[in-house]
Amino acid sequence: MFEFTVTATNGRARNGLFATPHGDLPTPAFAPVGTQAAVKALTPAQLSELGASLVLSNTYHLYLRPGDELVRDLGGLHRFMQWPGPILTDSGGFQVFSLSQTRKVDDDGVTFKSHIDGSTHRFTPEKSIAIQENLGADIIMAFDECADPHDRPYIEKAMQRTHAWAERCLAAKTKDDQALFGIIQGGIYPDLRSASAKFISSLPFPGIAIGGLSVGETKDEMRAALEVVTPLLPEDKPRYLMGVGTPEDIINGIARGIDLFDCVLPTRLARHHSAFSPEGRLNLMNAAFARDERPIDAACDCYTCRTFTRAYLRHLIVAKELLAGTLLSIHNLRALIRLVEDIRGYIAEGSFESRVPELLKRWSNNAKRLLGHG
Amino acid sequence: MFEFTVTATNGRARNGLFATPHGDLPTPAFAPVGTQAAVKALTPAQLSELGASLVLSNTYHLYLRPGDELVRDLGGLHRFMQWPGPILTDSGGFQVFSLSQTRKVDDDGVTFKSHIDGSTHRFTPEKSIAIQENLGADIIMAFDECADPHDRPYIEKAMQRTHAWAERCLAAKTKDDQALFGIIQGGIYPDLRSASAKFISSLPFPGIAIGGLSVGETKDEMRAALEVVTPLLPEDKPRYLMGVGTPEDIINGIARGIDLFDCVLPTRLARHHSAFSPEGRLNLMNAAFARDERPIDAACDCYTCRTFTRAYLRHLIVAKELLAGTLLSIHNLRALIRLVEDIRGYIAEGSFESRVPELLKRWSNNAKRLLGHG
Repeated sequence: MFEFTVTATNGRARNGLFATPHGDLPTPAFAPVGTQAAVKALTPAQLSELGASLVLSNTYHLYLRPGDELVRDLGGLHRFMQWPGPILTDSGGFQVFSLSQTRKVDDDGVTFKSHIDGSTHRFTPEKSIAIQENLGADIIMAFDECADPHDRPYIEKAMQRTHAWAERCLAAKTKDDQALFGIIQGGIYPDLRSASAKFISSLPFPGIAIGGLSVGETKDEMRAALEVVTPLLPEDKPRYLMGVGTPEDIINGIARGIDLFDCVLPTRLARHHSAFSPEGRLNLMNAAFARDERPIDAACDCYTCRTFTRAYLRHLIVAKELLAGTLLSIHNLRALIRLVEDIRGYIAEGSFESRVPELLKRWSNNAKRLLGHG
Repeated sequence: MFEFTVTATNGRARNGLFATPHGDLPTPAFAPVGTQAAVKALTPAQLSELGASLVLSNTYHLYLRPGDELVRDLGGLHRFMQWPGPILTDSGGFQVFSLSQTRKVDDDGVTFKSHIDGSTHRFTPEKSIAIQENLGADIIMAFDECADPHDRPYIEKAMQRTHAWAERCLAAKTKDDQALFGIIQGGIYPDLRSASAKFISSLPFPGIAIGGLSVGETKDEMRAALEVVTPLLPEDKPRYLMGVGTPEDIINGIARGIDLFDCVLPTRLARHHSAFSPEGRLNLMNAAFARDERPIDAACDCYTCRTFTRAYLRHLIVAKELLAGTLLSIHNLRALIRLVEDIRGYIAEGSFESRVPELLKRWSNNAKRLLGHG
């Protein structure tokens, strides 16, 4: 269980297969986010059809609602949300630390107030593991502290705490059918990132995550952190870049040896009427699309692009039909999943490294909206 | 084209096949409503999977947004919304007359203000037909006046107008690939209903609709109106009971010789967390379902019932996930479509008439919420 096999390499990029209780996960992989045990506006059948493999869900949200004990009593997250493939839960740490006004950290854990009803709760490393064991995902995460990446004194302290908590999480874990990943912190500081990579790699985690990126640092700082960290990681464990990302970040991450990604971007953009396209990120609410009979992307194989015109999608958006969010989510998720599928093919044939500049160029125009400004 | 063949009868109930340019429509049939060229929260693929045949869309809404000329220029409604089966559009009359504060009727037509931007528009019988020809549905409706069913002096006047407009609609129609249905009015008054049924039946419409019901009259008054009207209608034309209805109304309508129904009820209930079930109409937001591992209806073959527990559906509702509306819409639509499918089977085997009391009893508990009051 949880064996990770590298099946091909191209430079530092690699293809792999991660064996989980819910099937072998080909990597690199991009995981859609189902915060509350549902990827927003999509059925599991639609997720399967668009090629999703791993799905992420959030411990903080599920702990508060419907409650991890309820999910456990109903047979665990796979059965509850009816996702047959691998699931990953985060530790709850990132969400709790995001509640900056209503949480208090100490060396033992974090006390925080629920965003739903203001009630007081406490997470410790042991509690996070207990919750994640109740939820029953295939991949679970160590409880870490994600802090301001530019605040060196605090980042040092948070990293030490993250390391102590990593050991406590390993000690607290009781189940063999879940892979607990350790998390590297250290902000934008190469020496701290290096120390954290070495420490976390020294512990018996079956996978390693890189946290604290895509949280306010520049793209250069993100790439620099990856440059320091990934060469220090064991080759035989999957590497997960948490909360990342954009198409460019995914390409850059894979080129630096990352295997797993997750991000709310595709579904969030969909709810804001934006779609990835070869012309750049489209704001489909724009009047320019009112009579546009093309699909979002003629080369895309998703249900939305195989079926509907931009004109119809714009109509749904203007008419405030919920179907718009569903159809754009299908396309945006498929676009990123197709990107990693294509890259797996390039790695297998040895062409990925040489294609990186072309891929970055093709996707760079999706960094902002080129048409429409809504 | 538009031949209607009665394939079986049982008492006054009948099975039929209505030939349309987008396929043969087996009747009795229940049509989901796609007001703005989309059945709320559902893809056409999901609609097909749940057995939808005919889909209704609203002329008033599509005229205002995106505009009937745009729909025409993009290839018509079938291509625009990608529904491959038959489509029916209403005349716009019902919606316009619902704008009671902002419309003015005269013998030539109706002037009204848009609910979207307050702009002034005018529908006449000729305009309604022109819009519906632009939209390109298989079945289109004559422009009629739907008035307070209990206001006899006004109902008489509205019926006369409806009759005059029916003749103008027939004269205005230019296309052979659309079936124009006439509409019977007359409120709750048997003599007026009878006169209207005879007049509309005398005109060369390929189908006959009964309007002005399910608009404030009692169930007894609705049944009484049907008792008067359907015996006066030609056997060889389909009969459409507009805007109806509930499971009981559908059963009662079929027993009195009705072939077609449409209603927003299944999708509207879904958005209000309600689901048809053998136990009665369930409000799935109720805490009683928090740990209920059963599907909504163990006998239902829909995707929702084959896949998800009531506990998960309740979680989605409480967590305000859009997926809840999609999954409940799938179930509620399938429930009514399965009801008419079952009834077609009963009519074919000659058992429908004897089953009516049992069917009404089984479905009567869905008239109100038995569990939960949200």
